[in-house]
Amino acid sequence: MFGPGPTMVEPGVYEVLAKPLVGHLDPYFINILDETREMLRSMFGTRNPLTWAISGTGSAGMETAIANFVEPNSTLAVLGCGFFGSRMAEMGRRQGARVVNFEKTWGEVFGYEEVAEFVNREKPAVVAFVHAETSTGALQDPRPITKAAREVDALVIADAVTSLGAVPVSVDEMGIDVAYSCSQKGLSCPPGLSPFTASPRAVERLNARKTPVPAWYLDLRLLGEYFDGHKYHHTASATLFYALHESLRLIHEEGMEKRFARHRRAHDKLVRGFEDLGVRMHVPEGHRIPHLNTPRVPDGVDDAKVRKHLLEKDGIEIAGGFGPLAGKIFRIGVMGPMANDGCVQMLLDKFGAALRA
Amino acid sequence: MFGPGPTMVEPGVYEVLAKPLVGHLDPYFINILDETREMLRSMFGTRNPLTWAISGTGSAGMETAIANFVEPNSTLAVLGCGFFGSRMAEMGRRQGARVVNFEKTWGEVFGYEEVAEFVNREKPAVVAFVHAETSTGALQDPRPITKAAREVDALVIADAVTSLGAVPVSVDEMGIDVAYSCSQKGLSCPPGLSPFTASPRAVERLNARKTPVPAWYLDLRLLGEYFDGHKYHHTASATLFYALHESLRLIHEEGMEKRFARHRRAHDKLVRGFEDLGVRMHVPEGHRIPHLNTPRVPDGVDDAKVRKHLLEKDGIEIAGGFGPLAGKIFRIGVMGPMANDGCVQMLLDKFGAALRA
Repeated sequence: MFGPGPTMVEPGVYEVLAKPLVGHLDPYFINILDETREMLRSMFGTRNPLTWAISGTGSAGMETAIANFVEPNSTLAVLGCGFFGSRMAEMGRRQGARVVNFEKTWGEVFGYEEVAEFVNREKPAVVAFVHAETSTGALQDPRPITKAAREVDALVIADAVTSLGAVPVSVDEMGIDVAYSCSQKGLSCPPGLSPFTASPRAVERLNARKTPVPAWYLDLRLLGEYFDGHKYHHTASATLFYALHESLRLIHEEGMEKRFARHRRAHDKLVRGFEDLGVRMHVPEGHRIPHLNTPRVPDGVDDAKVRKHLLEKDGIEIAGGFGPLAGKIFRIGVMGPMANDGCVQMLLDKFGAALRA
Repeated sequence: MFGPGPTMVEPGVYEVLAKPLVGHLDPYFINILDETREMLRSMFGTRNPLTWAISGTGSAGMETAIANFVEPNSTLAVLGCGFFGSRMAEMGRRQGARVVNFEKTWGEVFGYEEVAEFVNREKPAVVAFVHAETSTGALQDPRPITKAAREVDALVIADAVTSLGAVPVSVDEMGIDVAYSCSQKGLSCPPGLSPFTASPRAVERLNARKTPVPAWYLDLRLLGEYFDGHKYHHTASATLFYALHESLRLIHEEGMEKRFARHRRAHDKLVRGFEDLGVRMHVPEGHRIPHLNTPRVPDGVDDAKVRKHLLEKDGIEIAGGFGPLAGKIFRIGVMGPMANDGCVQMLLDKFGAALRA
C-alpha cells in the first residue's frame, strides 16, 4: 500500500491486536492509557495535560476540535487550500458558527502577511488550518498562522491527521492550541483512534463556554473525567489502544528524529527518481509533505490506467487526485515501514514501467 | 471476565484482528461491509436498508440515534429505570430538545397503560427506552412501548447495547424504529463499533428535518453515502470490521435461536444455583436479562470484599451495582463463549466460596 493511508503496519502491532481483552477501567488498561498519553505528548511536542486519543477516526478528532472550541455565533476562520479545510468549515457551520473561509488554490500554502490581514479583518475566535493537506501534498508551516492568530487572540486548531508521526508537529513551540491526528498514517497503526491535544489556554476557553457541547461522545470535559478521573464514559477499545501503544513504542524505540530523517531521505530519493523519469512535483520544493508525494500526471498520460497497471500487475496501490486535482496528480504515500531505500527503488521501477506501458 | 462487558472473545475473532489491513474503499473491504450489514439485519430482525455499524462505541450509537432523530425544540420522552436512560435524556437536552422523563425505580419495567397515559399527555416526537438495562439487569418488553408510541405517531428508539446477540431484538416485529448496540457484549467482539439500524419510517423523518444534524461524524445521511454509495466519509477501521464480521459469522454458524437458547439455559442454571446459595435475584422472574444477572447482595455481606476475593483468588471479574443499587446487587455477565454449563458451575462454586469467605 503506497496510498495516502491507511498505511502498512509493523508486524509487532498486528501481534498485540490479538492480546486478550481487558475492561476499560482495568488497572492494567489504565496503565496502557497513561503510557500512551505520555508517548503522544512526545509525538505532539507538548506538555499539555489534555492529551489522549478519541475513540473514533481522524474525522472524529476534527469534530472534537470544532464541537468543543467553536461556539454558536462565534467566528471560525478556515484557511483552506484543499479538501479537509472545507470539511472543517462544514463542521463549523453545523455548530452554528459564522464561518469565514480564506481559500487558495489547491497545493498552495499560507504566509504571514495575508493571514494577518485576513484575521485582522474578520476577528475570528478560532483559526483552523491543515498542517499536511492529504489532497494536495502541501505542508503548511504553522508559525505564520499561529503568529497572526495570536495577535487577534484567536485559538489555533491544526489538523495533524497526515503529519503526526512522520514530520515534527511541535505543538508547544509552534503555538498551536488544539491538534488532532489519526492512527493509520504517520503512526503506522490500524485506523480507529484519533490522537488529540489541547493547550491550557484552550481548556480555559472551553471552561468559559456559555453553551454545552452538543456532542456528548466527543465532549472533552466528560472525556477528561474518564482519562484523568477513571470514571466511566464510554468503553474505550482495548484492542485499538494496544495497537496504538505498540506503534508509539516502536516509534520511540527508533527515535523520533531518526524516523523523521528516514522519511525525509525516502522522500528525497523518490523526488530525484521522479525527476529522472521526467515527472514534476505538484507542490514547490520546501512545502512538500515528505511522506505523501504528489507528482503531476505527465501530459498525455491517463492516470487511471497507470494506477490500474500498478494495482493489477504489481499489487501496488497508489491514489489519484480528486476535486480540482482529479487526473492531474498522483498521491503516493511512503510511510512507516515503507520509508526506506529498497521500497522507494522498487516503487520507482514499477511506476516508471507503468508510465511507459 | 464475568462482568457486564467487554466480554470474552472467540479465538477465531482474535485471529482475524491480525489480518492485513486494506483501505476503507477497497472492493475486498466493501464486500466485508456488505456481508456484515446483511448479518446485522438478521441479528436485529429487520429488513431495514439503513443497517450498518457506526465507527465508535455503543455510546456513539446512542448519540447517532439522538442527534439524527431528535430535533431542536421537539419533545423527547425517555422511559428510564436505570443509568442509560439518563444518558439518553442528557444527549437529548444537548440537541436542544424538550426532554420529558418517565422514571421508575431501578430494576422495574414499563407496562402499556402507564406508557400510553404518559405519551398521550406529553405528545413526544420520539420515545426512547433501554431494552436491556445493564445497570439493573432488567429486560424491557418493547411491545407495550412501541404500541403506545405509535398511537401518538412517535418514533421509537431502543437501546440494544446489552441485548443484541444474546436475546432476540426483532426490530421489525416489535415496531422499533431505531436501534443501536455495541460490539463487545452479546456479539462477543472487541469494542469499537456500534451496530445501528433505522426503519424507512425513521429515514422519512430524517429526510424531513428542518435543521442539519450538528454531528457531522455521526450524520446518517453522510454515512449512507459511504455505506451505500462508497463515497469517502471517514476511514472505517478494517481491523474492527474484520472482527465484527467474524463474530457475526460465528453466531450465524451456531444459529441465532440455538445461541439464545444456550444463554437462556446458562441463566436458568445460574439462577437455580443462586437460590441454592440463598441469594435472591433483584429483578422479578420474567423480566430478567438472561446474560446479565443481578443477584442481590445478601444481608451482612460486603459486596466489595466478595468481588475482591473473586478477582484476587480466582482471577474472576464480576461487577457491583452503582447509583441507587451500589452495594445492593452484583452484576454478573454470562455471555458468548462463557454461556455454558461448565463455566456457570465454576462461577457458582467460586461465588459461593467467596460469599462464605
